Amino acid sequence: MINPIEILGLVAAILTTAAFLPQVYKTWKTKSTDSLSLTMLLIFVSGVLCWLVYGFLIDSFPIILANFITAISGFLLLYFKYRYKN
Amino acid sequence: MINPIEILGLVAAILTTAAFLPQVYKTWKTKSTDSLSLTMLLIFVSGVLCWLVYGFLIDSFPIILANFITAISGFLLLYFKYRYKN
Repeated sequence: MINPIEILGLVAAILTTAAFLPQVYKTWKTKSTDSLSLTMLLIFVSGVLCWLVYGFLIDSFPIILANFITAISGFLLLYFKYRYKN
Repeated sequence: MINPIEILGLVAAILTTAAFLPQVYKTWKTKSTDSLSLTMLLIFVSGVLCWLVYGFLIDSFPIILANFITAISGFLLLYFKYRYKN
């Protein structure tokens, strides 16, 4: 049995990871990145990479999973920001 | 002495929390929310609230701190999205 606390962590992980998918999709479809802050994206991706290492060190699967996928979304948004800049 | 692993968690927490401040500032200044996905914001805030509870349950101060402040940023962005809609 999975620990109920880990289930909550997984729900959290799924939500905050899934959250960026509609943003990635919207940015890809509209090619609009005006309202997205580049500073936000750069700091965010750095932070997500730190969380990923932290997740490995405290051996928390939800933290590892969430931040691995969020890192990919973050890098995609950074790429779109660079690609579709005005 | 603080555990070095907790220091890395705090750095991660500071970065992913601080990341949303330039976004909140940019959105507040430009009143532009076109490129921000409402679906992203709603799922994101729900997820951040789950992380907050998870942080209390596994007693991780970086997770609690990060998600408390990120929740505030998330609610502010939701408010701007509602307030400055076209």
